[in-house]
Amino acid sequence: MKIGFIGTGVMGNGMIANLIKAGYQVSVFNRTKAHAEYAMGLGANWIDTPKQVAQENDVIITMVGTPQNVADIYFGDNGIMNGASEGKVLIDSTTSKPSLDKKIYEVAKDNGISALDAPVSGGDVGAKNGTLTIMVGGNRETFENVMPIFKSMGQQINFFGPAGSGQHTKMANQIMIAGTMTGMTEMLEYGKAAGLDLDKLVNIVENGSAGNWSLKNYAPRVLKDDFKPGFAAKHFLKDLRIALECAQEMNIQLPSTKLAKKLYEKMVDQMHLGNDGTQGLIKVYK
Amino acid sequence: MKIGFIGTGVMGNGMIANLIKAGYQVSVFNRTKAHAEYAMGLGANWIDTPKQVAQENDVIITMVGTPQNVADIYFGDNGIMNGASEGKVLIDSTTSKPSLDKKIYEVAKDNGISALDAPVSGGDVGAKNGTLTIMVGGNRETFENVMPIFKSMGQQINFFGPAGSGQHTKMANQIMIAGTMTGMTEMLEYGKAAGLDLDKLVNIVENGSAGNWSLKNYAPRVLKDDFKPGFAAKHFLKDLRIALECAQEMNIQLPSTKLAKKLYEKMVDQMHLGNDGTQGLIKVYK
Repeated sequence: MKIGFIGTGVMGNGMIANLIKAGYQVSVFNRTKAHAEYAMGLGANWIDTPKQVAQENDVIITMVGTPQNVADIYFGDNGIMNGASEGKVLIDSTTSKPSLDKKIYEVAKDNGISALDAPVSGGDVGAKNGTLTIMVGGNRETFENVMPIFKSMGQQINFFGPAGSGQHTKMANQIMIAGTMTGMTEMLEYGKAAGLDLDKLVNIVENGSAGNWSLKNYAPRVLKDDFKPGFAAKHFLKDLRIALECAQEMNIQLPSTKLAKKLYEKMVDQMHLGNDGTQGLIKVYK
Repeated sequence: MKIGFIGTGVMGNGMIANLIKAGYQVSVFNRTKAHAEYAMGLGANWIDTPKQVAQENDVIITMVGTPQNVADIYFGDNGIMNGASEGKVLIDSTTSKPSLDKKIYEVAKDNGISALDAPVSGGDVGAKNGTLTIMVGGNRETFENVMPIFKSMGQQINFFGPAGSGQHTKMANQIMIAGTMTGMTEMLEYGKAAGLDLDKLVNIVENGSAGNWSLKNYAPRVLKDDFKPGFAAKHFLKDLRIALECAQEMNIQLPSTKLAKKLYEKMVDQMHLGNDGTQGLIKVYK
C-alpha cells in the first residue's frame, strides 16, 4: 500500500519514520522542500504537488499547520481533490476546524473517495515513538480499513463518530488543557508572591485532588526557567481559537476558555513569545 | 496529652475519631451542641466554651467554617485567647485567611503560647481514614513537637514556613483546582454540544496530557447527574474568595481564578446550589 504524506514538520517526520518502519512505501510533499530532507533520508520519495501525491498513492495523510493550509492543500488548483479518485482514502491529522473536515468528507464522498479526520495528541515524543493518541471521525468502515496504518503511528486509537468528531474530541482535550495551564500558572504566581517553597508546593499539590499532567510535567520546567516548547504556545492559541469558533457556531459559552485564549493572545501576539512552550504563560503575569 | 477540639463537623469528626484511636484524651466544643453527639459517642468530653477548652487542654485544634468563625473562637469574650496560657499549642485547621492565622500566631507568641496554621486536604474520606494532607505554617519546633498528633490524622504532613504559610499553600491548591474544575466543565459542555460520546471522551482525555484528578473523579459523576458533594461548592467559593483577597493584598492579578469565583458565585448565590458538590458547576452552563 502506497502512502502519501503531506507536511514534514516535527510531527510529520515522526509519523513518517514509523510508517516506513512498518513497511509502507511513503511519498512526501512539503511547502518548503528543504524541510523534507529528513523524511527523504529515511527513504521517502519526493513528489512535487499535493495533486500528484493524491494521484500516485492509495492513502494520503495531511499534517500541516492551520485550517487555511488544510483548505489550500485539499482544494487548491494543485490540491488533493484534483488528484484523488475513487477508492482512495484521505486522512487529515492536522488539528483543524471540524467543519472543514466535514467539507472534505462530503466533497470526497461525492467522488467515491473516503475521508477521515484524525488529529493526534502526544507531541513530538509520541510521534517519534509511535505512541500517539489518535482521535478519529468519519466513516467507521474506512476507519477500520486503515487501522493498521494508525497502529503503526499510535497507541490509543479511537473512533468518535461522523466526520469532524475527531477534531471535536481534540478541541475538547485542548479546552481541558486551558484549565490546567491557567490554574497551574496562577498557582505558581500565587505561591511565589506568598513566598512559598515552590518545589515543595508543586510536589504536595501534585499528589492530591489538584493533581494533573501539566503540573507534573510543566511546573518543574517553569521553576527552572525552561520555556522550551513541549507544545508551542502559538499552536495552542490556534487550537483555542478554533475551539471558540466552534463553540460560537454551536451556541455555547465557554468563558474560562475564552479568558485562556486572551491570555495566550497576550503571550503570542503582544509579547511575541509564540515559539515558547505553553508553560511560558507565566510571563504574561509578570 | 489532652487535646481540645473545636468544630465537630464532618471533617472534625473524622479527625477526632483518629485522635481518640491514637490514645489521646479529647474534649470537644461546637457551636451547636447537638452536632457534637457523634464525637461524644466516641468518648470525647463536652466543654461549654472555647475559653474553657483552652484552659483545660494542652493542645487546642480548631476546625470550623469561616474566617469569621475562627476570629470569634479565638478572640471572642469566651474565646481561646482568654483561656490559653504559656506552653499551650493552638492549631487552626480551618481553611482560613493567612493574615488571620498570622495574627493568632503573634498574639499567642506575646503570651508564650505556640500557634500553627494547619489546613488540610483530602476531604471527609481522608479525615475518616487518617490520610489527610496537612499543610503547616508557624514555628518549625512547634511543628515537630506536635508531629505525633498530625501523624494520627494525616499522611502527607509538610511544613511550609512562617505563620500563614500553611494557609497560603492550601490557597494555591484551591487555585489549581479552580483550573481543573472550569476546564473539565467547559470540556464536557463542549463535548455534549458536539454530540460526542462523553464517557469515551473522558476516558481518552484522562489518559493524556490533559489528565487530572477532577476529570477522573468528578466527570463520571457529572455524566451520571450525581451532584452529591465530595466538596460542597459553597466551601470552595469561600476558599476562592479568601485566595483572591490574599492575591489583592499581595498585589497580584489572577484573572482565571477570579472568573472561576464568578462562576461559583452564580452557582451558589444566584442558583442556590451551594450544597451541591463542586462538579455541579456544569449547571451554570445550562
